[in-house]
Amino acid sequence: MATLEDIGVSAFINILSAFAFLLAFALLRIQPINDRVYFPKWYIKGTRTSPRGGNFVTKWVNLNIMNYLTFLNWMPAALKMSQSELIDHAGLDSAVFLRIYLLGLKVFLPMTFAALLILIPVNVSGGSLFFLRKELVMSNIDKLSISNVPPKSIRFFVHISMEYLFTFWICYMLYKEYDIVASMRLRFLASQSRRVDQFSVLVRNVPHVSGRSVSETVDHFFQTNHPDHYIGHQAVYNANKFAKLVRKRDRLQNWLDYNQLKFERHPDKRPTSKLGFLGLWGKRVDSIEYYKQQIKELDKRMALERQKIIKDSKSIMHVAFLSFNSRWGAAVCAQTQQSKNPTLWLTNWAPEPRDVYWRNLSIPFFSLSIRRLIISLSVFALVFFYMIPIAFVQSLANLDGLEKVAPFLRPVIELKFIKSFLQGFLPGLALKVFLYILPTVLMIMSRIEGHVAFSVLERRAAAKYYYFMLVNVFLGSIVTGTAFEQLHAFLHQSPAQIPRTIGVSIPMKATFFVTYIMVDGWAGIASEILRLKPLVIYHLKNMFIVKTERDRKKAMNPGSVDFPETIPSLQLYFLLGIVYAVVTPILLPFIIVFFAFAFFVYRHQIINVYNQRYESAAAFWPHVHSRIIASLLISHLLLLGLLSTKKAANSTPLLIPLPILTLAFHKYCKNRFEPAFRKYPLEEAMAKDIAERNAEPNFNIKAYLADAYLHPIFGSFEEEAEPVQVRIDKNQASHVAAAAAVADSPSLSEVSSPSPPHYVHNYDVESQHYIYNYDVESQNNVYHYNVESHGNWY
Amino acid sequence: MATLEDIGVSAFINILSAFAFLLAFALLRIQPINDRVYFPKWYIKGTRTSPRGGNFVTKWVNLNIMNYLTFLNWMPAALKMSQSELIDHAGLDSAVFLRIYLLGLKVFLPMTFAALLILIPVNVSGGSLFFLRKELVMSNIDKLSISNVPPKSIRFFVHISMEYLFTFWICYMLYKEYDIVASMRLRFLASQSRRVDQFSVLVRNVPHVSGRSVSETVDHFFQTNHPDHYIGHQAVYNANKFAKLVRKRDRLQNWLDYNQLKFERHPDKRPTSKLGFLGLWGKRVDSIEYYKQQIKELDKRMALERQKIIKDSKSIMHVAFLSFNSRWGAAVCAQTQQSKNPTLWLTNWAPEPRDVYWRNLSIPFFSLSIRRLIISLSVFALVFFYMIPIAFVQSLANLDGLEKVAPFLRPVIELKFIKSFLQGFLPGLALKVFLYILPTVLMIMSRIEGHVAFSVLERRAAAKYYYFMLVNVFLGSIVTGTAFEQLHAFLHQSPAQIPRTIGVSIPMKATFFVTYIMVDGWAGIASEILRLKPLVIYHLKNMFIVKTERDRKKAMNPGSVDFPETIPSLQLYFLLGIVYAVVTPILLPFIIVFFAFAFFVYRHQIINVYNQRYESAAAFWPHVHSRIIASLLISHLLLLGLLSTKKAANSTPLLIPLPILTLAFHKYCKNRFEPAFRKYPLEEAMAKDIAERNAEPNFNIKAYLADAYLHPIFGSFEEEAEPVQVRIDKNQASHVAAAAAVADSPSLSEVSSPSPPHYVHNYDVESQHYIYNYDVESQNNVYHYNVESHGNWY
Repeated sequence: MATLEDIGVSAFINILSAFAFLLAFALLRIQPINDRVYFPKWYIKGTRTSPRGGNFVTKWVNLNIMNYLTFLNWMPAALKMSQSELIDHAGLDSAVFLRIYLLGLKVFLPMTFAALLILIPVNVSGGSLFFLRKELVMSNIDKLSISNVPPKSIRFFVHISMEYLFTFWICYMLYKEYDIVASMRLRFLASQSRRVDQFSVLVRNVPHVSGRSVSETVDHFFQTNHPDHYIGHQAVYNANKFAKLVRKRDRLQNWLDYNQLKFERHPDKRPTSKLGFLGLWGKRVDSIEYYKQQIKELDKRMALERQKIIKDSKSIMHVAFLSFNSRWGAAVCAQTQQSKNPTLWLTNWAPEPRDVYWRNLSIPFFSLSIRRLIISLSVFALVFFYMIPIAFVQSLANLDGLEKVAPFLRPVIELKFIKSFLQGFLPGLALKVFLYILPTVLMIMSRIEGHVAFSVLERRAAAKYYYFMLVNVFLGSIVTGTAFEQLHAFLHQSPAQIPRTIGVSIPMKATFFVTYIMVDGWAGIASEILRLKPLVIYHLKNMFIVKTERDRKKAMNPGSVDFPETIPSLQLYFLLGIVYAVVTPILLPFIIVFFAFAFFVYRHQIINVYNQRYESAAAFWPHVHSRIIASLLISHLLLLGLLSTKKAANSTPLLIPLPILTLAFHKYCKNRFEPAFRKYPLEEAMAKDIAERNAEPNFNIKAYLADAYLHPIFGSFEEEAEPVQVRIDKNQASHVAAAAAVADSPSLSEVSSPSPPHYVHNYDVESQHYIYNYDVESQNNVYHYNVESHGNWY
Repeated sequence: MATLEDIGVSAFINILSAFAFLLAFALLRIQPINDRVYFPKWYIKGTRTSPRGGNFVTKWVNLNIMNYLTFLNWMPAALKMSQSELIDHAGLDSAVFLRIYLLGLKVFLPMTFAALLILIPVNVSGGSLFFLRKELVMSNIDKLSISNVPPKSIRFFVHISMEYLFTFWICYMLYKEYDIVASMRLRFLASQSRRVDQFSVLVRNVPHVSGRSVSETVDHFFQTNHPDHYIGHQAVYNANKFAKLVRKRDRLQNWLDYNQLKFERHPDKRPTSKLGFLGLWGKRVDSIEYYKQQIKELDKRMALERQKIIKDSKSIMHVAFLSFNSRWGAAVCAQTQQSKNPTLWLTNWAPEPRDVYWRNLSIPFFSLSIRRLIISLSVFALVFFYMIPIAFVQSLANLDGLEKVAPFLRPVIELKFIKSFLQGFLPGLALKVFLYILPTVLMIMSRIEGHVAFSVLERRAAAKYYYFMLVNVFLGSIVTGTAFEQLHAFLHQSPAQIPRTIGVSIPMKATFFVTYIMVDGWAGIASEILRLKPLVIYHLKNMFIVKTERDRKKAMNPGSVDFPETIPSLQLYFLLGIVYAVVTPILLPFIIVFFAFAFFVYRHQIINVYNQRYESAAAFWPHVHSRIIASLLISHLLLLGLLSTKKAANSTPLLIPLPILTLAFHKYCKNRFEPAFRKYPLEEAMAKDIAERNAEPNFNIKAYLADAYLHPIFGSFEEEAEPVQVRIDKNQASHVAAAAAVADSPSLSEVSSPSPPHYVHNYDVESQHYIYNYDVESQNNVYHYNVESHGNWY
């Protein structure tokens, strides 16, 4: 077991490596050549441009020595922005995400003081028995933990009262934080300018009515049941085939770009290629001409396909985005049950357009139930049995197996150096690969579950990752053996025995977790700020691909806060802190360092780097809250188990009310705050409606909403947007006039009914125009999104 | 252990006693003197009057011999009414309640055939091992059960496949039934004529706004947020003090009645009484005069108090019944979140006026959370630890204890006869008393939880009773020892061991449950139809109290289906049937007899006797459904445990998917059907609104709703209703005119704002008139309800 000195050495190494990362970051970030890697957010906002002027060298390398001396000045700079500015700058999600780290500091700082001042003296002085029994090999760190207190000691009353104190303190902080976040969310939603999703409702499972198109069915139903508020809808198309063409076109465009670049570099030699398989044989053609021709043909096919999709009633899915003339009408429709059959006409808030995961929109209700069942079973299997396939792969991948499969490799493998390298490397490889692809696998699982918004997908993936970490990192480290063995053991132990088994080994694992916090927490966060991977990729792209300013913008790849991974690991640190606060309080300072450091780093990244893909207005908070509560419950149970092995029979029962009170607190919070994250109160909607009606009485809501939720495939032809600009404006004007004419009486929106062919073209063309506008106004635009993330919506 | 012959004897005895009850019933019911005890429903409906004419004897006793010969003809008569007639006659609750018994028959009849034809031969022929080990004392009935199959037998595949078959069959029937009940509910709600609760919403936790009364706050909020639909509200008063006066007046009235009756019987002697303590000393006064005087004074005080309540703004609670001009508006308001703070302005469907439990309307939100926590803990304690206080009382109540407390009783107690009687009697007494008052205790607990409708209270009480039965009757009979001991044992056993422990003892307890079904089921149902208690009470009242026709009506006490007790016991029978279907199929015929017999009896009672207090439109069905699903899961677990002790290692794992599939089925059903029981679809509401608007375009909804939810205390002066009748009509006319004048533009309803004193009287007076009207039109009236159940609303 590690002694205090061991931990000191480990801490020293980790602090050193963290500092190395920081130093590297400090040096790299002030080089102008890296400016776009470390400050992409400002480029996207348009307030920063590439460093110009100066000579050739200063354009690439920073020669100002002063900048090198103040290399840590990003830290105070990261704190300068106020919270409201931060919300404006990066959105509420990011601001609330930072509050989790602050909450960690607020919770654990006083707890650390209390624990160090009260518990450590109690534990250390309790060790009278310890010095008598020298034969027991115990580490120094155990002297500071609850292990040092002899059984049946009256000192356990101190631990129990501290556990009460800590629980009340955490609950108090959680309550305050929930309150603040909930009101921040409501204020954010209220303060936002007009947004399409406030007026939109997603309806799923539109029933099939014979003799009527989906559009007619939707219009008829909602004109009947929401006559005063419904103004129209936008259909959702099944565009699988079209998306394939889009992907093919992207590929061709890439080849064209590559060949054009090649030609620019060597203008003397026009690039050619062969038409046969993999370009190995066949007729030799001029590459640039060939790809241009191919793209032109594909564009024609795509235009045809697009027309076909819009005309063909079968490609319209049984899903639609409804538009309402007021937030009140949309709120009512989203929150109420529409049909006698509760599986039909399922209405819900429309996610904001950037957030829609189009592919899942068409999954029918029945299939959803089955998908969810299958995925929950798979997650359970993944969490508890993931070692089985890995062990299998490992057994295949050992050297003997390899030699059997590929006997010709034997001479190479038998070399001593290579053999020892492979033996050390191969068995771990399968596990490493698995852990690397795990977030992707969990995300795919969430997609199969059928959620229709990226934000929900990420939250669900985060939940799965949390379960995995809880079982495999936390429990798995405490109880040795694979999760599967644990499960087996737990099934054959009495429920009262489980917390004992775990509780007893908890103090012994403190040193492991201290090391874990330093490696995964400290060094991990420091490597986050360095952005090594984006740095390398950016410079590679810059070297080979980038031609125009737009290309350079595309190459930046700012990334975003990776909620599915960061939030679960954050929650793991909360769990560690809460569990060890009473058991081994010396662990707390390490956690505080993690929270403080991570706060600085993420604040810097959010201000300067990340560009969030969507804005869910802190919809993840209820999960954060409930998992901290779960950590509290786990800590109560484990302390119960631990104390019951210490024979503290007269004090242990005092702990029993604690989990019950915590659960009651959780239930109260759920009732009190959660609706703010799930529903949109009518009071708010009405107030916003009235204020807006007074400010802009003649605003044409119908025109505003007309193409808000157009399938992204219809916005993917950047080239066409320019030439038809003139026509668009004319069309739009007539369209707005028409819309204004029908705006008074609720009637079928011509714009949103794509069946008559003469509208189709307007529709399509306008859509690009709208999206283009959106782009200019809001920076976080649909257009940009389409370009960046084709891989996402299909 | 009981043999087949023992069971035969027991069955014979129970069938005999059941027949004795039926015979007694058949004889008693055709006596004209008992007509009101056995056919009260028809009296209440007004289609039956007391038998008249004939001579003195035929008025009391039926002398027609033919009637005696056909004494079982109530059974076919009970089947004559069609389901739709039954719904009209007794409401949907009763009709769906009967469907539970039918469901039992539909589920268990085919299962019985399959089990008897397939499983019994398999079990009997499997007994090769059994005949070899004669030393084992096993009963005959065990030869027919799974116990007879030797370990490791391949025959267990038959049992497992039968379990699959049964589970699918039950799920199929449950699905069909849920579908039917859900559509029956929607049809019922749609077919009903206009009802006040369709237009009403209950709002709780109205916030306190300084400088404004509650009424003003409510009006302002809903006029702002539901401008097109809100038309007014009715305040709820805190009438604790008034309710006390009402109770006191009732007591005095009883005394007056008693004395007047005494005087009528002995006109020569005017009854007198003394004024002192318990009438033992003090001045002697004329009783009739005295009570008349007292009542008069009390009436004055009550009138004052009533005025005070209505005038005093502090007696208005932060709760109100909102009225809307359309079902659509009410449905929207009930289903949406109103306020930013989700604990304020909680809206929900108003229960129908008969169903409101006024007392709980004022409980604040925070207190509700605490109440629910405390009650859940109490229910847990009650279920698992109820034996502790009873054992304590028993230990006190034994003879030695008694002698210690009251030494003077010793000579009496020491008599041998009395001693043995007491020793046999006393220990059981505490348990008997406990079981007798248990439903009442559970009902009180549900009341403390703070539900605002009788229907919800009854459902909650039923849930608690179900848990009690499940743990103490089902598990308690299988695993010997008190529930507390079981809990202790379970906590110290592994989770995998628990189903084994229970599973093993299941086949051995089959004979016990057969006896239980016969005693509690058969004989219990037979005693239900006899109505012995109401019969005796009616005749006693008839003898001493009844003076007028109205008194006789009051004395009838038709009662209603006792949902909190009958539904949990029904669910217990489902559980027994499902668990034993595979294990000891010989139990099934007994259950079928129970379901068939109970179906006849309850159908007869519902048609002829019961008068439901409220109509919840089968809101209990989701509970019935989910508890049958729970029974299925329990049966899977126990069969798993049982088979794992039979070493059927190759077949047992086949059972594992079954509970998972069942849970998935449950979740699907929940999504598919449950919203129909919780929400009111807008489609329905709108359709009903439009139909009604076309039928009666000039209907004055405001006047219709004006006093629908008046606190019952304002309707409790029957005497005053007549004299002010003329004034009422005038007032009402002006009120209706006023209402009509403001009906077009949504504005504050004068009627519903009781603050200005000159409206107060109208309000009050009208209320009685309205309630009176209601009485005449609907038979199941508020007025009637008030008179019958003072004890209930306070």
